[in-house]
Amino acid sequence: MPLDYPDSFRELVRQFRRLPGIGPRSAERIALWVLRSRDAKPEQLVSAISWAHEKLTMCRLCGFFAEQEECPLCLDEGRSGRELCVVESPTDILPLERTGVFRGRYHSLGGKLSPLDGIGPEQLRIAELIERIGEERPSEVILALGVDVEGEATSHYLAEMLAPTGVHVTRIAQGLPAGGGVEHADQITLHRALANRGVYGQR
Amino acid sequence: MPLDYPDSFRELVRQFRRLPGIGPRSAERIALWVLRSRDAKPEQLVSAISWAHEKLTMCRLCGFFAEQEECPLCLDEGRSGRELCVVESPTDILPLERTGVFRGRYHSLGGKLSPLDGIGPEQLRIAELIERIGEERPSEVILALGVDVEGEATSHYLAEMLAPTGVHVTRIAQGLPAGGGVEHADQITLHRALANRGVYGQR
Repeated sequence: MPLDYPDSFRELVRQFRRLPGIGPRSAERIALWVLRSRDAKPEQLVSAISWAHEKLTMCRLCGFFAEQEECPLCLDEGRSGRELCVVESPTDILPLERTGVFRGRYHSLGGKLSPLDGIGPEQLRIAELIERIGEERPSEVILALGVDVEGEATSHYLAEMLAPTGVHVTRIAQGLPAGGGVEHADQITLHRALANRGVYGQR
Repeated sequence: MPLDYPDSFRELVRQFRRLPGIGPRSAERIALWVLRSRDAKPEQLVSAISWAHEKLTMCRLCGFFAEQEECPLCLDEGRSGRELCVVESPTDILPLERTGVFRGRYHSLGGKLSPLDGIGPEQLRIAELIERIGEERPSEVILALGVDVEGEATSHYLAEMLAPTGVHVTRIAQGLPAGGGVEHADQITLHRALANRGVYGQR
C-alpha cells in the first residue's frame, strides 16, 4: 500500500477542501498550519463556529445577519421605506451601505437562480420580497444583482415577477469600473458602457 | 454608529482570516457558506479539527504525521537508511515519495530559517537531524528544500552544520521545470539550468 497521510490528517484536509475557494494545496497548507503553528489556536476557530451557529440568524424581513429576529437596518426607523434594494447575498449589503448614497431598505434573496445547482425561485426569498412590496409599498425596487449569467437571469425573472405589483423596478448601472482602462475591459462591459453612455457632466 | 456585522459574524470572519492564504473577501465568503449552505455541515469541520488535535502527532524521528510515536515510514524496515532526505515540511514528503525514485528515509525540519518570523535554528529540527546522522550513519544527506531565499539560507546553514559529521551532503537539482519553456523562465532559473547542464542522454 502506498504511503498516505494518517486518517485524521486526511479528514482535516478534506474538511478544509469543502470550504468555498479552497483547493487541495491550500487545504493541506491550512491543515498543517492548524496543527503546527504556535498561534493557530484552532479552539478559537471551533468556538467561533459554534458561537455563530448559536447566536446568528438571518433577519426575518431583509435577510441580513441578525442576532435577534430583526436586524439593526430593519429596526432603524430613520431609514426610508420608499426604496427597496434587492441583493443576492447578505454580504452585498455592507459594501452598498458604505457608499453612503442609499438610505432605503434592503432585501437579500439569499442567492441567485442557478438551476444546475438546484436553486430555483423557491430556494430564494422571492415570495418574501413580493409580500414585503405588498405590505411596505415602496415606490422603487432597485435590483443590485451581479452581472454574471445567473445574476442577469435572476434580475430578468424578478422584473417579470414584480411587473404585476406595479412598482417601479430599476437596476444599478453597468459600465467601466473605477480604475479600469478601456484597453483591459471585456467586450460585454464595453458594449454596455457604450450603450449606457450619458451626457458628460450629468452622469 | 455605522452599520456593521453582528459580533458573532465578525468573529467568525476574523477566525477564517487567520488561516494562511485567506484574505478578507474569502473569509467572508467562507463564513457565509458555513452559516448558510445546506451542505456546509460545520460540525464536521469542528470535529475534524478536534480529532486531528487528539490523534495526530509528529513522528519522533522524521517529523512526518503520525498517529503513534513513529510514522509508517520510520517503522518500515524495508527502507534504506543509507540516504536521508531533508525537507522543510511534512507535506513535502508525499510528493517526493510519489516519484517512486527514493526509497531512503526522510527528515522534516518543520520549517525553514526565517529570522523576520522569529524562526532560527533552534525552532527547526536541526539538532534532531544531527543526532540522527550520528546514530543512523547515512552515507548521503540529500537537501530537498525550496529555492526561495529562506530555503537557500537553510540549505547553506545545514551544509555548514553537517560538514563536521563527514556525511556526503547533496541537494536536489535546480533547473527548468517540466512543461516550462525557456521563454517564460526567470533569469535565476535559466542561470542555474545552464550552470547545471549535463551531457545529453546522461542527465
